[in-house]
Amino acid sequence: MKETRGFHVAVLGATGAVGQQMIKTLEQRNFPIKKLTLLSSARSAGKAVKFKGESILVQEAKPESFEGVDIALFSAGGSVSKQMAPEAVKRGAIVVDNTSAFRMDPEVPLVVPEVNEEDLKNHNGVIANPNCSTIQMVVALEPIRKEYGLSKVIVSTYQAVSGAGSAAIQELKDHTKALLAEEPFEPKILPVKSDKKHYQLAFNAVPQIDVFTENGFTYEEMKMINETKKIMHMPNLKVAATCVRIPVETGHSESVYFEVEKNSVTVSDLQGILLQADGVVLEDDPSNQVYPMPAHAVGKNDTFVGRIRKDLDEENGFHMWVVSDNLLKGAAWNSVQIAESLIKLNLV
Amino acid sequence: MKETRGFHVAVLGATGAVGQQMIKTLEQRNFPIKKLTLLSSARSAGKAVKFKGESILVQEAKPESFEGVDIALFSAGGSVSKQMAPEAVKRGAIVVDNTSAFRMDPEVPLVVPEVNEEDLKNHNGVIANPNCSTIQMVVALEPIRKEYGLSKVIVSTYQAVSGAGSAAIQELKDHTKALLAEEPFEPKILPVKSDKKHYQLAFNAVPQIDVFTENGFTYEEMKMINETKKIMHMPNLKVAATCVRIPVETGHSESVYFEVEKNSVTVSDLQGILLQADGVVLEDDPSNQVYPMPAHAVGKNDTFVGRIRKDLDEENGFHMWVVSDNLLKGAAWNSVQIAESLIKLNLV
Repeated sequence: MKETRGFHVAVLGATGAVGQQMIKTLEQRNFPIKKLTLLSSARSAGKAVKFKGESILVQEAKPESFEGVDIALFSAGGSVSKQMAPEAVKRGAIVVDNTSAFRMDPEVPLVVPEVNEEDLKNHNGVIANPNCSTIQMVVALEPIRKEYGLSKVIVSTYQAVSGAGSAAIQELKDHTKALLAEEPFEPKILPVKSDKKHYQLAFNAVPQIDVFTENGFTYEEMKMINETKKIMHMPNLKVAATCVRIPVETGHSESVYFEVEKNSVTVSDLQGILLQADGVVLEDDPSNQVYPMPAHAVGKNDTFVGRIRKDLDEENGFHMWVVSDNLLKGAAWNSVQIAESLIKLNLV
Repeated sequence: MKETRGFHVAVLGATGAVGQQMIKTLEQRNFPIKKLTLLSSARSAGKAVKFKGESILVQEAKPESFEGVDIALFSAGGSVSKQMAPEAVKRGAIVVDNTSAFRMDPEVPLVVPEVNEEDLKNHNGVIANPNCSTIQMVVALEPIRKEYGLSKVIVSTYQAVSGAGSAAIQELKDHTKALLAEEPFEPKILPVKSDKKHYQLAFNAVPQIDVFTENGFTYEEMKMINETKKIMHMPNLKVAATCVRIPVETGHSESVYFEVEKNSVTVSDLQGILLQADGVVLEDDPSNQVYPMPAHAVGKNDTFVGRIRKDLDEENGFHMWVVSDNLLKGAAWNSVQIAESLIKLNLV
């Protein structure tokens, strides 16, 4: 590595869809790295990955892999995180974990820097990166809450397949090609690889992301509900979610209904707030057909907000449409951004 | 024609996506037809369409075309309906109009037979078929309202491209092929042919169906809001809608939040009601991954309902997922069903 000043950073899950974006994001942000260690399962170890023109060999992750590591970005599945995070922390690393393993652990900060960067100060070695669909929603809601309060959220999502990993992306493409050619195709991964049945996502909409919980909501929906309350420090916020997978490769969209606490708030009040908000790009000009869409959000770190409307019945109710790249703000960028915040706050 | 008993039926817009389904549905239902007249614009006239093994020539629609017609099914655009419906009625036909031309006219019944068949008795020659996305929602809501009351509805839609016509279906397919082959493609139809800008629908989600109104809602959204109130005879029902086009060929899906008036209603109460409801098929068994999806609903007349959940915060709040074939229950089948109701009620 050329940098001599900087941090020893490890990426665990370096060959996955999110891991690849983490490495790209570290490069694009010119993150202060003195050494980059790339880790994976035994199956993917041995692959070479480019970083700033150099080729780095991916190694099998072992407890010893974290010796001397300052910051470890984890994105290799919940069970790997549960096993490896304590090993990394024991060796002095700070873990930024992109799985759901520690998100609801009261000892672990769950952080979206635009919303609750200060929570990083209470970390005990592990920081959790929230679920992709939660992150972009709270980025849009927090500036509104700060100014006008927030009492209720009902969200319906339109989620891209890349959240389910590289193999799921390939299955969507292969199935789409087969349908266009009127050839048979047997899905084996979507909607949830580990679940019993597999369904077509190509030219379809599947109202299941992650498996179902006892109350009829999916884990994905319960993540959105519980994580939103934790990140926003609002245990009593009313939140409901319906999570749906649609045939989009990358970029989650959300139809968000919300109620504010102050009266007489207008659409242009909200537009004004969001125009100034960190990490938000306002795209809201219906008369010129300007509104966010996943195809336009791919590859960008921002959260795009538009179609802000006042509810026609509820005095304090509003609707908006929120779009972001689920691999970037929803995962890789938010993780790297947490690492940047740790440096800024002198916590690493 | 073989039938000598029966009605003289005309289909206006016979070569369009919905018109074709109307003709198929008339055949499948063995509708009592003594003569079938197929009508279109001058541009499409001269084509031959099969009906019960016979080939029928499509003629250019003119006022005289409706001489002797008993029932005319219209699906050729709002301006054609406005021009031709009075001509057809003057000549003694009853018009079932699938466009938005007359839907909110207080003199015109807006009918979904499972919900308000009785309104047909007040017709003055024209009966309006509601918007596709409205029909399937009220079919699911009405049996619930009857038993438990209904005070509020918030819907987010996942709408198929076939609602935008045959050329839009082709554009989705062509654009999808181009993206898979990494070739350029210039959309010219979607999201709304007559609007200024055109966007990719392939692997995208577009929060615009029809053009925008002054209040920031689209016409499609305002149709769902206003038509639901009219069909259900609930001018004060709180209804909000966000309408989104997704890359699905046929089959609209809807994430519906609603509040009932009675207390202590349970999910299994609602399942019990919907299991018995006309036109509804309950597909609600999360533990076996049974839920409605557009790919499974295509070609069927029913409205499929699943993912019924109790809201975690609102005592009387529930969520459900409603799917139906937008060309059938959303258009052709509902129109033919209205015609069947007219016969049943001795109104024709």
